[in-house]
Amino acid sequence: MSEFRRDPISGRRVIIAPRRSVRPAFCGGGGEEARRPRPAYLGDCPFCAGNERMTPPELLSLGRSGTAPDTAGWKVRVVPNLYPAVSPAAEPFSAEGCSSAGGGAHEVLIEAPEHNRQPGNFPPRQMDLVIEACYRRGQALAGNPSLRYLQFYRNYRCEAGASLEHPHSQLIALPFVPTELRRELQRSQELYLADGHCPFCRIVEQESHFARRIILQHDRYSALIPYAARSPFETWVLPRKHQASFLETDAPERAALADILEELLRMIARALGDPPYNYYLHTAPLRSAPLPYYHWHMELHPRISIAAGFEMGSGVFINETAPEEAARFIREKGNTDHEQSW
Amino acid sequence: MSEFRRDPISGRRVIIAPRRSVRPAFCGGGGEEARRPRPAYLGDCPFCAGNERMTPPELLSLGRSGTAPDTAGWKVRVVPNLYPAVSPAAEPFSAEGCSSAGGGAHEVLIEAPEHNRQPGNFPPRQMDLVIEACYRRGQALAGNPSLRYLQFYRNYRCEAGASLEHPHSQLIALPFVPTELRRELQRSQELYLADGHCPFCRIVEQESHFARRIILQHDRYSALIPYAARSPFETWVLPRKHQASFLETDAPERAALADILEELLRMIARALGDPPYNYYLHTAPLRSAPLPYYHWHMELHPRISIAAGFEMGSGVFINETAPEEAARFIREKGNTDHEQSW
Repeated sequence: MSEFRRDPISGRRVIIAPRRSVRPAFCGGGGEEARRPRPAYLGDCPFCAGNERMTPPELLSLGRSGTAPDTAGWKVRVVPNLYPAVSPAAEPFSAEGCSSAGGGAHEVLIEAPEHNRQPGNFPPRQMDLVIEACYRRGQALAGNPSLRYLQFYRNYRCEAGASLEHPHSQLIALPFVPTELRRELQRSQELYLADGHCPFCRIVEQESHFARRIILQHDRYSALIPYAARSPFETWVLPRKHQASFLETDAPERAALADILEELLRMIARALGDPPYNYYLHTAPLRSAPLPYYHWHMELHPRISIAAGFEMGSGVFINETAPEEAARFIREKGNTDHEQSW
Repeated sequence: MSEFRRDPISGRRVIIAPRRSVRPAFCGGGGEEARRPRPAYLGDCPFCAGNERMTPPELLSLGRSGTAPDTAGWKVRVVPNLYPAVSPAAEPFSAEGCSSAGGGAHEVLIEAPEHNRQPGNFPPRQMDLVIEACYRRGQALAGNPSLRYLQFYRNYRCEAGASLEHPHSQLIALPFVPTELRRELQRSQELYLADGHCPFCRIVEQESHFARRIILQHDRYSALIPYAARSPFETWVLPRKHQASFLETDAPERAALADILEELLRMIARALGDPPYNYYLHTAPLRSAPLPYYHWHMELHPRISIAAGFEMGSGVFINETAPEEAARFIREKGNTDHEQSW
């Protein structure tokens, strides 16, 4: 029997329909080509160390040992996206107009000098530098009063929309607060006004107590599959203490985020056979006061199912695995040393 | 320079960023396997004529020439989905609860007896029967007072989420009005209250006058790429006269819908090289009075781009082709007799 669930934060409805996982399918996984080992350096990859001339001048580099900007010797490097979705505006953005010039910023965070690294397989402390670069560029962009929101995101593998395979994540700064955030902000404010609690703090507390949907419980963060997950292994990483904006974090909090993210991605790769995925940050709008009702977090979506006509038409997601079962699966299979696939 | 656009109906923001279409990509199309010719009959396909015993008993068949139910001789056949996302409820749905049993109906419309037919390549009048089956099952389900909405949808090819390749579309009847529809209903009502016009009627009128985003203009329907399209070839099919519900159509209106849909799908297949796609119906909730502000329509999404971390996180879509250019492309390339790919 299937079950309707509603996400308290977004109001989103999902259908948990476990029986569907046994339905016949002709659509194979493929992906052998993508699993083929890659070299550490490719001469035509614009993100490989040594090819710095192929990108616009860098905005930031971390881990440099005395070398000049736009040369090798960095551990993480941030450059403007050469094919930006948005770029600095010629004119100020008008929220009222139906159309306006696409003012903003679009940056690439090159996560490692080597072509063949990936999150979940980084050397120690590499993810720290990625998170640190995101924080520093966020702080820099927050100084621009025409920007309202910072969307940090990661696409892993071409099936998840990555157009270059060298490990990288991206930052798009927007002159408006986007739809999904506006929805979360509005509903979490309503819930807060009704009972005086941040609804995300409630989720962390209740899920920690219930335990069955928790994947990882660290001192500062919980990684869990939400009650109304849209797909089998949708996972949220939430700070356990209240904090509205990622830009309010201190250095130990960022290092701890890097730790849980790296461990989570390693478990997901082991349990699900190195699947494509997307993750992104949801955080308070730039320069907002510390909000009592909002709570920054990351959302991860391994792409092992396809949102199709029903989901697109209705906005309702069909999830073929109960979140409680999915979390148990990741806890069990993600911790072995053998690569497993379901 | 990119441009922000807002869809008047949904309020959705998109970024039209044409320059991005020249960005480098390593993710190839593949799909040769999927393009391999298929036989008209497969012994293990549950939807092929002759294999009727492999499905639950039929709910409807059209075009039968004197043969018994659940035997061959039909042209279109409707059966319950063997792996339903929702099924008749054991208890009534409570809209207030956070969870409830997944009561509803999930049916499969088998669009042709032959395995190797597809929309856009149907024999004359075949699409009429598909639309007619959708209408008749919709009318039947509308008689169930616990059902509130009817989601008709079509997934073409496995990249678009089809789990069986035999031509079929699906109907899910829900005990609530889903998110996307609620959003369209609310905003179109607001627009109607503000100026007394159905906003969809306005779109049809203005786009017909502007002409540059129109793909097909028939007597009863317009097919056009919307002003704020989420992906390059998102296309809407709208009745040119006001009509809130698909279930208000008469037989000539349904036949005309079949005509424009079949012609549109043929053009899309020619212009874009037989791409995967999804389409779905948006219509007024079941048993609502004829609404002056809502207007049923179909939305088609050829899947030639991937919604990735940015789109998932923000709800804002990046579209790499201006809708005016995309419509011109389909008009020009969709009408030749040679298969083209962009």
